[in-house]
Amino acid sequence: MKFRVHVRVLPRAGLLDPQGQAVEHALAALKFGGISNVHIGKAIEFEVNADSADRAQAEVKRMCEQLLANPVTEDFSIAVEG
Amino acid sequence: MKFRVHVRVLPRAGLLDPQGQAVEHALAALKFGGISNVHIGKAIEFEVNADSADRAQAEVKRMCEQLLANPVTEDFSIAVEG
Repeated sequence: MKFRVHVRVLPRAGLLDPQGQAVEHALAALKFGGISNVHIGKAIEFEVNADSADRAQAEVKRMCEQLLANPVTEDFSIAVEG
Repeated sequence: MKFRVHVRVLPRAGLLDPQGQAVEHALAALKFGGISNVHIGKAIEFEVNADSADRAQAEVKRMCEQLLANPVTEDFSIAVEG
């Protein structure tokens, strides 16, 4: 079965996020108010063949640990669509 | 009220996505099988003050159109958390 997977990889809380700060300032300069805590990372989407959604989730977790995220500086979250 | 917002900005379908192709090849090289259609973009998260979730959604849509996404080459999706 084919599952569509959405992965988000974001800088770990507390680490510097200069890209996020730049966007926060740019939004303020464009007169968007009340914005805070901007964090920017990677959105990764793909399709994966697996026997079940649980298997897909486990497989994608291994991909994140081995390739998609930097375990020292980044956190990831995985969403598997049926 | 404060809403937590998750935005995904991804290259429009049909456009070249060299970063996605590189990751697809790298996953194959790591012996992850059955992966296809890898697309890579930006994950943007922040908090926004708004009167309602609908208002927040509309405000974030304008941010995407004006700053966060390139309307020619990228699509965006917005999720607002209560």
